[in-house]
Amino acid sequence: MMNVSIPPIRREMAEQARAYIDQLTKPPGSLGRLEDIAAELAGMTGELLPRVTPPGVLVFAADHGVAAEGVSAYPAEVTAQMVSNFANGGAAINAFSRHIGALLQVIDVGVAAPIADERVIQKKVRPGTNNFATMEAMTMSEAEQALHVGYEQAVSVIGQGGRTLIVGEMGIGNTTAASALLATLTDEPLERIVGKGSGIREERLAHKRDVIRRALLLHQPDPAKPIEWLAKIGGLEIAAMAGAMLAAAERRIPILLDGFICTVAALVARQFAPNVAEYMIAGHRSQELGHDIALRLLGKEPLLDLRMRLGEGSGAAVAFPLFVAATAMVNEMATFASAGISTGEEKGEKQA
Amino acid sequence: MMNVSIPPIRREMAEQARAYIDQLTKPPGSLGRLEDIAAELAGMTGELLPRVTPPGVLVFAADHGVAAEGVSAYPAEVTAQMVSNFANGGAAINAFSRHIGALLQVIDVGVAAPIADERVIQKKVRPGTNNFATMEAMTMSEAEQALHVGYEQAVSVIGQGGRTLIVGEMGIGNTTAASALLATLTDEPLERIVGKGSGIREERLAHKRDVIRRALLLHQPDPAKPIEWLAKIGGLEIAAMAGAMLAAAERRIPILLDGFICTVAALVARQFAPNVAEYMIAGHRSQELGHDIALRLLGKEPLLDLRMRLGEGSGAAVAFPLFVAATAMVNEMATFASAGISTGEEKGEKQA
Repeated sequence: MMNVSIPPIRREMAEQARAYIDQLTKPPGSLGRLEDIAAELAGMTGELLPRVTPPGVLVFAADHGVAAEGVSAYPAEVTAQMVSNFANGGAAINAFSRHIGALLQVIDVGVAAPIADERVIQKKVRPGTNNFATMEAMTMSEAEQALHVGYEQAVSVIGQGGRTLIVGEMGIGNTTAASALLATLTDEPLERIVGKGSGIREERLAHKRDVIRRALLLHQPDPAKPIEWLAKIGGLEIAAMAGAMLAAAERRIPILLDGFICTVAALVARQFAPNVAEYMIAGHRSQELGHDIALRLLGKEPLLDLRMRLGEGSGAAVAFPLFVAATAMVNEMATFASAGISTGEEKGEKQA
Repeated sequence: MMNVSIPPIRREMAEQARAYIDQLTKPPGSLGRLEDIAAELAGMTGELLPRVTPPGVLVFAADHGVAAEGVSAYPAEVTAQMVSNFANGGAAINAFSRHIGALLQVIDVGVAAPIADERVIQKKVRPGTNNFATMEAMTMSEAEQALHVGYEQAVSVIGQGGRTLIVGEMGIGNTTAASALLATLTDEPLERIVGKGSGIREERLAHKRDVIRRALLLHQPDPAKPIEWLAKIGGLEIAAMAGAMLAAAERRIPILLDGFICTVAALVARQFAPNVAEYMIAGHRSQELGHDIALRLLGKEPLLDLRMRLGEGSGAAVAFPLFVAATAMVNEMATFASAGISTGEEKGEKQA
C-alpha cells in the first residue's frame, strides 16, 4: 500500500499566528473565523505568513457501474459529456476557477467512454467500475492505482506552484458509492445518509437506499481494510481524491474540502493516514443529506452554508476567497504599534 | 429633504434570469444561494448578465460625542488614528479591498480631529457630534448635509465605474448611536439590541444601555421624521452611509451590506425611500448583538456567518466574491443545449 508520511501540524506556529493576529489593527477576535483560518493555515504550512495562491483544482472523473441500477437523475453518458464541458471551460468549476486564479486540471481516472480530448489528463485505470450491487466495484490493484493517480496528480500540481489543494469530481452515480462508503463508518441509518444526489424523486431515493443496503450485505466491506473497502464499494475518482489529499498533507499543503463526495473522500484518506485530516478545512455545507454526518465524523465545521450541492469542487472554489482574505489579513494589515494606534483598555476581552 | 426617485426592481428580469440559470450545465437549483444572488442582481440592474466589478467601497469616518460617556472599549482618538491607518493601507478593509479590486475611498464626514491627509476625502460636516446623552447630536441641517455627502460620494464612485456599492464606517461610539436608532424602530428591549461593540465588558455594557435608555427618554426621537430622528441620536457617518445607499439604488447599483452599523444605516435609508431595500443584499451576520434584529426588520438573510464584528465594510468586502461567483455562473457557464449534454429525466425537481 501507498507509503505516506504526513508531518504533524506545527501547533506552536498556529499559536504564534494567533498572538500576532491579536496585534493587528482591529479589536481582538473581531475577524472571527478568518482569524481561525489564518492560524490553522500557519499550523499547516509552518509559516506565520502563509501564501495560499494559486490553488490547484483537480477534478477527477469516473463512471460507476451502479448507475445501471437507476440511482441517478441523469444518464451515465453525462459523465463523459461533462468532461467535455470541463475541457471547453463551460462548467461551474471552470467559471469559479478562473476567478480565483486556480491551476485547474481535469483527469479521466475511469470514464466509461473513451476521452480523446488532449485538455483532459488521461489516467484511466479502467472504463468505469463494476456495478457493486452485484459484484465488487474493482480489484484491489485498481483501487490502489486510482489512489496513486490522485497522489501523483497532486504532486504535479503542487510542483507547478499550487499552494492550496481543492479536489472535485464528476461521476454519475457517485453519491451512491460515497453513501455506501460513509454508511460503513457510522451506525446512522441509511435514511440519514443517502440523499438525492443530483436531484432524484422520493421513490427513486428509496430504491437507491435499497441498492446500497443490499450491496453492504453482499460485500460486508470493512473500512479497517481500506483498499479492500474501496475495491468493493468505492469509486475510481473517490480513490483518486483521497490519494491527492494524502500527497498534499505530506507536503504541508492545506486542503480545502468541497461537499459530500469530497468529504467522504477525506474520510477515505483518513483511513490510510489519520493525521491527514489536520490539513483540511471544510469549505461549505452541502445540501446533500449525508454531508452533515460526514463532516461530523471528520470533525469539521464548514465555512459557507449556501444551499449548494453541485460537486466538481465548486463549493470549495467559492469558499477559496476566504483563504485569500484570511492570509491578506496577516500579510497586509498594520499592527497597533506600527500604525501608532491606541489600544483598548479592555483589549484582552474577546466577545463571547 | 433629499429628493430621490428609486426605480422599482425589474422582477421580470429576475424571473428571466432564473429560467436561464436552470438551463446551465448543473442540476437545477444546485448552486443554491448563488442562483438567488444572480437572479436578484438581474432584477436590480435590469440586466440578464449583470456585471458587479469593480465594487466601490466607501468608508465614512466620524466621531460621536456620546463616546464621552465611556461606552466604547477604545478612546475616541482612535477614530482619527484609524483614518490614518486607512490612508496608509494598513486596515482590514484596505487588505480586503485590494483583493476584490475595489475602488476604495475614505471620507471624513465628521472626525473630531483635523485630518490633513490628502488621501482622505475631506467632507467634514462638523468635528464630531454632540453627546446625545445630554443634547441633540447635531442640527437637522447638519444631518441633511451628512446625507448629501454620502449621496454625492456614491454618485462619484459610480461615475468612476463602481458596479456594486459597499459602505463601511469608522467612528468610536457608533454602535451606541446605531443601537439608539434601532431601538426606536422596534419593541425589542435594549437587552436584545445593545451589544458589546468593539468589545466592552458586561458592566460597561449595562452602562451603555443606560445611556441609550436615558437619551431615548430625553429626545423622544421619531423615525417617521427621519431627519429630526438622525439629528437627535444619529451619527454623521451613519447619515452619510444612508445617503450613499439612496444614490446607489437610484442608479440600479446593487448594495452589499456589511454588519450592524451598516444595516442600521440601511434601515435609516429605508425611512427616506422604502424601496431602497430592494437593492440590498446582506453580506454577513455580525456577532454584534442587535444585528439579527436589524436584519429581520430589513427582511434580509445574510450570506456569510463567520463570527465577524469589525465594521469598516470588512464583512461586505469578504462576501463580495460571492457576487463574483454568482455573475461568473450566469456569464460564463455553458447551457445543456450549447454543451450538448443530456438533461436529467427528473430535471424539473428541485431538492427540498
